[in-house]
Amino acid sequence: MSETLLSSRNLAFELYEVLDAEGLTQRERFAEHNRETFDAAIGTARSIAEKFFAPHNRKGDEHEPRYENGEAILIPEVKPAVDAFLEAGFLNAARSFDAGGMQLPTLLSQACFAHFQSANAASTSYPFLTMGAANLIESFGTDEQKQRFLQPMIDGRFFGTMALTEPHAGSSLSDIRTRAEPAADGTYRLKGNKIFISGGDHPLSENIVHMVLAKLPDAPAGVKGISLFIVPKFLVNEDGSLGKRNDVLLAGLFHKMGWRGTTSTALNFGDNGECVGYLVGKPHHGLSYMFQMMNEARIGVGMGAVMLGYAGYLYSLEYARERPQGRVPDNKDPATAPVAIIQHADVKRMLLTQKAYVEGSFDLGLYAARLFDDTTTLATEAERKQAHELLDLLTPIVKSWPSEFCLKANELAIQILGGHGYTREYPVEQYYRDNRLNPIHEGTHGIQSLDLLGRKLAQNGGAGLKQLIRLIANTAERAHFYESLTPLREPLEKLVARLQAVTIGLLTDLGQGKVNSSLANSALYLKVFGHTVIGWRWLEQAIRAEEGLAKGNAADVNFYKGKLQAARYFLTWEVPGCHHELAILEARDDVCLGMQHEWF
Amino acid sequence: MSETLLSSRNLAFELYEVLDAEGLTQRERFAEHNRETFDAAIGTARSIAEKFFAPHNRKGDEHEPRYENGEAILIPEVKPAVDAFLEAGFLNAARSFDAGGMQLPTLLSQACFAHFQSANAASTSYPFLTMGAANLIESFGTDEQKQRFLQPMIDGRFFGTMALTEPHAGSSLSDIRTRAEPAADGTYRLKGNKIFISGGDHPLSENIVHMVLAKLPDAPAGVKGISLFIVPKFLVNEDGSLGKRNDVLLAGLFHKMGWRGTTSTALNFGDNGECVGYLVGKPHHGLSYMFQMMNEARIGVGMGAVMLGYAGYLYSLEYARERPQGRVPDNKDPATAPVAIIQHADVKRMLLTQKAYVEGSFDLGLYAARLFDDTTTLATEAERKQAHELLDLLTPIVKSWPSEFCLKANELAIQILGGHGYTREYPVEQYYRDNRLNPIHEGTHGIQSLDLLGRKLAQNGGAGLKQLIRLIANTAERAHFYESLTPLREPLEKLVARLQAVTIGLLTDLGQGKVNSSLANSALYLKVFGHTVIGWRWLEQAIRAEEGLAKGNAADVNFYKGKLQAARYFLTWEVPGCHHELAILEARDDVCLGMQHEWF
Repeated sequence: MSETLLSSRNLAFELYEVLDAEGLTQRERFAEHNRETFDAAIGTARSIAEKFFAPHNRKGDEHEPRYENGEAILIPEVKPAVDAFLEAGFLNAARSFDAGGMQLPTLLSQACFAHFQSANAASTSYPFLTMGAANLIESFGTDEQKQRFLQPMIDGRFFGTMALTEPHAGSSLSDIRTRAEPAADGTYRLKGNKIFISGGDHPLSENIVHMVLAKLPDAPAGVKGISLFIVPKFLVNEDGSLGKRNDVLLAGLFHKMGWRGTTSTALNFGDNGECVGYLVGKPHHGLSYMFQMMNEARIGVGMGAVMLGYAGYLYSLEYARERPQGRVPDNKDPATAPVAIIQHADVKRMLLTQKAYVEGSFDLGLYAARLFDDTTTLATEAERKQAHELLDLLTPIVKSWPSEFCLKANELAIQILGGHGYTREYPVEQYYRDNRLNPIHEGTHGIQSLDLLGRKLAQNGGAGLKQLIRLIANTAERAHFYESLTPLREPLEKLVARLQAVTIGLLTDLGQGKVNSSLANSALYLKVFGHTVIGWRWLEQAIRAEEGLAKGNAADVNFYKGKLQAARYFLTWEVPGCHHELAILEARDDVCLGMQHEWF
Repeated sequence: MSETLLSSRNLAFELYEVLDAEGLTQRERFAEHNRETFDAAIGTARSIAEKFFAPHNRKGDEHEPRYENGEAILIPEVKPAVDAFLEAGFLNAARSFDAGGMQLPTLLSQACFAHFQSANAASTSYPFLTMGAANLIESFGTDEQKQRFLQPMIDGRFFGTMALTEPHAGSSLSDIRTRAEPAADGTYRLKGNKIFISGGDHPLSENIVHMVLAKLPDAPAGVKGISLFIVPKFLVNEDGSLGKRNDVLLAGLFHKMGWRGTTSTALNFGDNGECVGYLVGKPHHGLSYMFQMMNEARIGVGMGAVMLGYAGYLYSLEYARERPQGRVPDNKDPATAPVAIIQHADVKRMLLTQKAYVEGSFDLGLYAARLFDDTTTLATEAERKQAHELLDLLTPIVKSWPSEFCLKANELAIQILGGHGYTREYPVEQYYRDNRLNPIHEGTHGIQSLDLLGRKLAQNGGAGLKQLIRLIANTAERAHFYESLTPLREPLEKLVARLQAVTIGLLTDLGQGKVNSSLANSALYLKVFGHTVIGWRWLEQAIRAEEGLAKGNAADVNFYKGKLQAARYFLTWEVPGCHHELAILEARDDVCLGMQHEWF
């Protein structure tokens, strides 16, 4: 039977041939683990995802959450699925043994989680959001806050959300208006409205812990005046029992294009002046706390986009293998039997493109997860800092590239199924609709491009960028060993050289205060930078495939040849196309910036 | 108030400044018309579209047709809308006065129809399909068939469908299995199953006339053995009254991603052996009849894609003008007021891209409609033939280019609205879902690319292509008059020259029997050819804009400057990018063709 969530052969390739997951077990934190414990965790994830998450993916789309008497009602299948996830320990997969976790590397917890994201993006969101909220309290909360709010989240009794966006401000967090007034007892009273809060209400847990951005009365204007608060749906007594309902009101649900199984809520804080919140960390540091947790969250979002692409790719691949239709062009004889559509060149193109996008960004997402492990478990502070610098730089790509290109993959999956792909009788159109959220939430595509070009590149004197260039050069050098890889390596080297020059030029302009013109075409920069990174990852995969082929295991030949062909596709069909965007960037072309709004 | 369906200034620009609609009134057939009658028809179309079609566009999506007791049930708003359309005469806008029509040029009937397509793609489909079916009978039916089936369609009492696709065959029409056995009375008995038949059942008309492709018992294999039949839902007595129900069964409805208001049906013909059909024209000529009507149908489909793009563009433009959020990058002062998002460079990019795609293909669709008028009303047979050759060549682009790029425009409209764009509280996500059908139906994107490269280019010794090249050269020559247009003209000239060389190479290969390798990358060829055509149309629009500016009408300055900027965007940002695809085509790159199915 064919696999529907991801290719386990490909996952093993990533973990054990590309990313050296076993090497991590040499580190003290992961010393109790080995390939067997890794594979056991993955096997459990796959089986729970297949048994509890995949079967209600369509139903969750068709029966989206309803608003009833101030509560959000979900289909009954979500809770048993989430419970099975909790029971198997995946919420705390990366947490320490002594905190009740599995102490897995993030690389492995992400690999496990990927199965759920592929099976059912919507139901998977509830624990995903909880992990994010829990990590914030774990990193910045007081012991008492941990005791009262974090522990029940770890235990799976409380779920969490991130409440940032406000109706009038959208991405512009500096303009949020939610206020927090200090109360006599050291807590705060919040007042304001938040929208698009995923998981903002549901019946899956005893309590919901909202991590809310708000401003104190003495807050300076802008992003440096934002503080972070814990605002539970139900207050929690000192003994841990639930107290009365807090003044957080579910004002309504949004009805989305896709990802419908996850409640997207409008929440009113303090309509009755009684919304109790607890300050996390220092006043006015809320946004920097959020940003410190964003790398991990954005890896998760990026991997979510990858996995929706993966699910669509595998489905359309299977369909193309089994669907007979038409004949290859040089056969004009209608009496011959039709061929499977996978034999048609244009269907091959659409499958190969999907493979290149999906497996390229799957590799990058896992690479980033491993880098995250490096930031916490490498031996020296200097090494950890270095890992951090690279991860910071790559994060906008990890989040945005699959959001754009695995969404494209979903479009191609629909196209391969033709009229059937356009119907809700087949799953591929839902994958597209679900995935369409990813370029919007957790920092829109435009925000990511400004983050990369306007912030990340120059951070720490460009340390992350220099490191990336060295890593790419190292991969290219190792590729020299295989003459067959020359036509794949050369386009990448050419692109990197020119990208470097363009980058220096743009950063120089930025340094000289030409801010608007330098950032005007940041979307093109994001695309080229992303293609460079994914091109690098494909060259790395190609080297590993050549190494694998050299081992001569007959059962693996097709797998490795497929890898080499996808690498060839990406490096010769996609990478060279980026010179066009680089030319526009080099010219500081102002056709978009110069467009006047009266001219539209 | 801002316009929501299309910009009437832009439509006037197309009709009276670019496409010389008034010139058509010099022709005998259109002699009774003038600019006033044209504008009156357009005004009526706009007002009916706004009043009857736009208001239920979302409702039709939310309440898709239901299957009940063998019938399809629609929301009640569809019938009054369609009735208003019929009453105003738009079904017969292009038909002769003496046949009860308005005798408008197709250019004008298409311009009118565009308003309905923008307002409500789904409800507009019912009359659109009826027009197609009626045109088939008009062109190839007997007088008796016209009397019995066409006249009630013209009168709006009968509606029509096109029934081609079968479950096992999809795009491969040569493999259809529906059979037609001759009966003693000169009629036929049909037996077979069709799927994805749009408008295959509904309560909007007294009767539904299905135009069905089927095979006679003595049919040769393949496309040359397909015949065309009239198969009415209700038989029609000699006096024109309805007879008994024919043996055509609504087997079920498909549930689509979008375009939900149009029934997509599975029809069973002859389950009880009593499905009566009437042969249209000669046996075995059915597909050629269909093909002869396809230019017109495909202009309509292409324009449908354009208009969904147009609706999304206008909505996101209005939103961007009114939504304050954030500040331009060089303003770091959070105390200043937020700007409208139309001031952000990346939002300008997304709007300008939409404008370039939408107005570029709007121009092409109308150009093709005018060419259609040329095929019927130019003075000499030679001129009409020439127009036909060009139209034949352009049809795959007219159909496929907006299906791909106005769909992209819809993605950008969603992105501009951000989280709101992703909700069903705003219309843009529906435009995307509706438009996603267009690259699939009426010949998939892949089929269009094979039609262009494998058939149309070489037709009549490449007469159409030669004509196109001459027309582009003519436009480029006139562009020389404006020095400001040099940077727009040069990229187009460069692209055309290289495209010509690549085309000759591919046609030579085809001539030498290298069929599979020549056609393998046809999708890339389609893209480049399409960009060349749209680039040409943008250069033409730019010339007209310069001419307009020279007239010095102050009220028009912003309009013309917007045209010039969009032309500059398309010709300098999009056109040069095509050299990458041309390089792949030149190399006869086989990375996709060479991919083996075992390697996936």
